[in-house]
Amino acid sequence: MHAVEIIRKKRDGLALERDDVARFVSGATDGSWPDYQLSAMLMATVLRGMTDEETAWLTEAMAQSGARFDLGRLAGRKVDKHSTGGVGDKTSLILAPLAAACGVVVPMMSGRGLGHTGGTLDKLESIPGFRVDLGAREIVDILEDVGCVIVGQTEDIAPADRRLYRLRDVTATVESIPLITASIMSKKLAEGIDALVLDVKVGSGAFMRTLDDAERLARSMVRAGALAGVRTEALLTQMDAPLGRAVGNSIEVVESIQTLRGQGPRDVTELSLLLAARMVLLAGRAASAGDADRRVREALASGAGFERFRRMIERQGGDPEVADEPERLLLAPGREIVRAPRAGYLTGLDALLVGRAAAALGAGRATAEARVDHGVGIRVIATLGALLRAGDPVLELIHRDGNGLADAADLARQAIELGGAPPAPRPLVVGDVV
Amino acid sequence: MHAVEIIRKKRDGLALERDDVARFVSGATDGSWPDYQLSAMLMATVLRGMTDEETAWLTEAMAQSGARFDLGRLAGRKVDKHSTGGVGDKTSLILAPLAAACGVVVPMMSGRGLGHTGGTLDKLESIPGFRVDLGAREIVDILEDVGCVIVGQTEDIAPADRRLYRLRDVTATVESIPLITASIMSKKLAEGIDALVLDVKVGSGAFMRTLDDAERLARSMVRAGALAGVRTEALLTQMDAPLGRAVGNSIEVVESIQTLRGQGPRDVTELSLLLAARMVLLAGRAASAGDADRRVREALASGAGFERFRRMIERQGGDPEVADEPERLLLAPGREIVRAPRAGYLTGLDALLVGRAAAALGAGRATAEARVDHGVGIRVIATLGALLRAGDPVLELIHRDGNGLADAADLARQAIELGGAPPAPRPLVVGDVV
Repeated sequence: MHAVEIIRKKRDGLALERDDVARFVSGATDGSWPDYQLSAMLMATVLRGMTDEETAWLTEAMAQSGARFDLGRLAGRKVDKHSTGGVGDKTSLILAPLAAACGVVVPMMSGRGLGHTGGTLDKLESIPGFRVDLGAREIVDILEDVGCVIVGQTEDIAPADRRLYRLRDVTATVESIPLITASIMSKKLAEGIDALVLDVKVGSGAFMRTLDDAERLARSMVRAGALAGVRTEALLTQMDAPLGRAVGNSIEVVESIQTLRGQGPRDVTELSLLLAARMVLLAGRAASAGDADRRVREALASGAGFERFRRMIERQGGDPEVADEPERLLLAPGREIVRAPRAGYLTGLDALLVGRAAAALGAGRATAEARVDHGVGIRVIATLGALLRAGDPVLELIHRDGNGLADAADLARQAIELGGAPPAPRPLVVGDVV
Repeated sequence: MHAVEIIRKKRDGLALERDDVARFVSGATDGSWPDYQLSAMLMATVLRGMTDEETAWLTEAMAQSGARFDLGRLAGRKVDKHSTGGVGDKTSLILAPLAAACGVVVPMMSGRGLGHTGGTLDKLESIPGFRVDLGAREIVDILEDVGCVIVGQTEDIAPADRRLYRLRDVTATVESIPLITASIMSKKLAEGIDALVLDVKVGSGAFMRTLDDAERLARSMVRAGALAGVRTEALLTQMDAPLGRAVGNSIEVVESIQTLRGQGPRDVTELSLLLAARMVLLAGRAASAGDADRRVREALASGAGFERFRRMIERQGGDPEVADEPERLLLAPGREIVRAPRAGYLTGLDALLVGRAAAALGAGRATAEARVDHGVGIRVIATLGALLRAGDPVLELIHRDGNGLADAADLARQAIELGGAPPAPRPLVVGDVV
């Protein structure tokens, strides 16, 4: 069937055959479908949707459009975690070594930050010497030795996704559950993992603003994973306010190290433990959820997780002493305090606005080509729910020579939500899909 | 507003502002919107539709994207006719000179055949020497002298439509009332006409298969014309069976000349007179519909229409003696008779299949670049509704050296519909929108 007939089928709301989906993906991979046909197909998909079956075929075809990791020689189950992106979310840096310390093999492929959300690779690259572009051989070696590795997506992983993603960004076809599912899951399937834990963020700072949308996305991804033979579970977690007290790159690595030393903020610690425990259970390294929970808490308390993190840094070319002395990670020298404009309870700290403020300072990037400044960021000083006096410090902006400071301060001020009564306690986890 | 935001607006089903539509059209004209953004916008428009207002803005912006004819120096109202395309439809060749003979100025810009439908330019080019690519000056001169001219669309007329049309063809975005309206009407508005008569075909051989769809398209075009200040009326006419007894190029010119001499088939004659009378009335050259009807019948009976046609051929470089001796138009020598497979009433002659058979012989083109063979075609021998015996001739295929003959004969046989009772008489005109 020709491209135009496949596009017409989707346009008319008919379900595609497996072969139609395969042709679309191979057309994206080998260039036989020009951009204008791909974007017409993408728009038809946004507006007509896809069945679970079509989504699974799309995911599988995209995963098979390039190289796949061969982790067969490694004993034990391989389990990864993926987050849909948030503000201050450094859990990958913490849970990967924790799960590895419990015997899980964690071949984590991460991304860079874009817009108001941070990226794990950017954070790790604030460690001097740390390399995220490892060859397949190195990756397997490190996994054998340390049990976890965090690398970037290589050019040959899911090339169809690479081409489609670039197009979606400029054709208003990003917002589609089937397309998001296939984009995320195809890259994860290409990692050669046995199971996957998803952290689907919900709230102002998340891609999915409502619980309903987040649940739909989680269900779609869990189903696509299952159809591809990769056991997938999703936690839905709050992203109305930043996670932890650090937003940026170096500053988030410091908070991650503190957490691995048992001195992290409660929300970062708990979410990392929860997700790591899921990985341990999916890897068959615990007899029950309770057992998995005990094991990851033990790995944290004993320093075994910290030790894995230190070794991972070393094996990936970074300076391991950063783990011992996080103050080696130099922050930018500029400081600006954003204060409560009046008295009141701190009822909220808008994650989107805090993320945009950090990006304005240089911690994030507006376009995929831009560079980030690892040393800038934002520290959350006040505690959510606390009763503040007018002028009490809420956020500390860490800037370099005032770059982006005016915009960042403006955004940061808007992020502060004050109320007459203490806010209801907000659960960290708002749902799950298993 | 950026391209991606305008696309998103349409994707989300919001109505565009006039400025959004203008940006889309200028993006198509100057290339600042790449093909992939245009095609995403086109697909969103197919699936979300456009209001009458948006459609009118799109039409106007496309009309203004290039050159416009300046016919200001010509006295009298300029009126054109446009058909949505059918099989055996040669009415343009007949009604343009008839209307001109009644004092209407007819600056007709026509197209070429594509797929199973014929094109007026292809038909006229079967006349030796006939030129359809005239300069603006020549066009005005001929209009002053003859009152009618039939030419091709120049490169500088509605360039936005040219780019969008090419894309629509390969992205399954042809079938959209607002996009079809804008494509047709923008070119007509650029002609600088005062009024327009539309012949919207309905049936198997038409772009619009159902009366409902045809009515929607007619209403949309009439409305877009009105909003642009061009009085527009539409007739909805049947296209289940070919119009007249000739399908092809030379063979249709011959039938047109016979009709202008008062010896044409009844359906061709009547439809040409009906459409011409509308033009005469819209041009203010008749006091009433009855008066307009009398005037065009007189122009036919007196030979005044024929005389205009002869002069138009001459002024456009063609051999005028073709009008006197149509047999100068040589048909291809091959003949093959397709016969009734059994006895029965000839209840139908599927226009789509007859059109495809003619195209298979070489009378039409599959792609815009292909060439047509002016000498081949199909003659309808049997009369619709007649009681046939098995073996009675129904269609005569006029072929060149057997080219495409097997396919054409197969399609032609499928086109023959036989029944046990005579079919109900079918009206030529099935509706109108004024």
